[in-house]
Amino acid sequence: MDYRRFGAKLLVRLDRGEDIVESVKRLCREADIRLAVVSGIGALDYVSVGLFEQGTKQYHTKEFSGSMEITGLAGNATRMKGEVYLHLHIVLTDASYAAFGGHLNKGRVGATAELVLEILDGEAEREYDEVTGLNLIGFAGDE
Amino acid sequence: MDYRRFGAKLLVRLDRGEDIVESVKRLCREADIRLAVVSGIGALDYVSVGLFEQGTKQYHTKEFSGSMEITGLAGNATRMKGEVYLHLHIVLTDASYAAFGGHLNKGRVGATAELVLEILDGEAEREYDEVTGLNLIGFAGDE
Amino acid sequence: MDYRRFGAKLLVRLDRGEDIVESVKRLCREADIRLAVVSGIGALDYVSVGLFEQGTKQYHTKEFSGSMEITGLAGNATRMKGEVYLHLHIVLTDASYAAFGGHLNKGRVGATAELVLEILDGEAEREYDEVTGLNLIGFAGDE
Repeated sequence: MDYRRFGAKLLVRLDRGEDIVESVKRLCREADIRLAVVSGIGALDYVSVGLFEQGTKQYHTKEFSGSMEITGLAGNATRMKGEVYLHLHIVLTDASYAAFGGHLNKGRVGATAELVLEILDGEAEREYDEVTGLNLIGFAGDE
Repeated sequence: MDYRRFGAKLLVRLDRGEDIVESVKRLCREADIRLAVVSGIGALDYVSVGLFEQGTKQYHTKEFSGSMEITGLAGNATRMKGEVYLHLHIVLTDASYAAFGGHLNKGRVGATAELVLEILDGEAEREYDEVTGLNLIGFAGDE
Repeated sequence: MDYRRFGAKLLVRLDRGEDIVESVKRLCREADIRLAVVSGIGALDYVSVGLFEQGTKQYHTKEFSGSMEITGLAGNATRMKGEVYLHLHIVLTDASYAAFGGHLNKGRVGATAELVLEILDGEAEREYDEVTGLNLIGFAGDE
């Protein structure tokens, strides 16, 4: 991983073998990023994606391997009880050019990944919500 | 819906049952946003997406239900004759992890949606274009 | 193509028949953009997309025609030896609403395309990397 900061934006290069989720978490800790919008493209050779089953509140996951283009990576980095909390979704394409994806659990870089973290000057908290079974974004000071 | 403004960016949380299109329109009216770039992720339980048939200039639409991850939401908010005008495209994944989508007509939040509106300091107008049959972006003062 | 600059952001409208890749390259040359994040939506009537086969380091490409929505366009504009270098990935949907895509080689606008170029105030270089067979992003002054 290498990156450079340009104002409120970090341009990040991830290298072969690095996990996207772990790398971005580490970057947020090291650079003390508390709130950021994450996006990017690249190529993976392994990914674990999830679907949240809204009725049962359970995550289903599936793993894919092979040469895959990241055609869309989107989400955000917040904090939950002080710890970095990532919420990332991903769309990939494979040798058939068909697109697939979901909630990003793990994604190993196969060639390179080029991410942008746009830092927001402030904070948002995550709190567990019983109704949805998810850790939702909240804003301090709100009821 | 709850949101917080960080400089030129609004981080928005939509809640179960809310329609993305209507919510973003309302937010643009309330916060007097005239031009913004929209992006986000989340999870829907209903969506209506469209394809614009360029030859016949007709929109085809299709509805999908069930647990769906928003793996990409992208577009913009402009104004047309003073009214908020949204142009949003969406990519979703379902229990098969296959991706699908199109022009976003309606999208009901199933769990949560986390959007970012990035306000541009200026305006762009929409005007009907006979050649394409679409309301295209234009810039005031241009010929 | 018409565009307007709002601070560090360019909102760009491409018109029927224009190629996305060529148009963005030309814009970067004309506006002297050295580093930018690119995103957008729109509709194409022809696209050539690629997959980078990580094992053999070869690009496979496939062409698609017909009415297609751009549901996600993402990437960046850098420079390589002074020349504009685009790295763009794309997700599209067609009349079946299924999503597909990959590395964007060429994309002819069928109706309109609405892009955003976000200029980063600085530079990043591309350099050929023998290990991956790709032109990777680097940051001047790094080892």
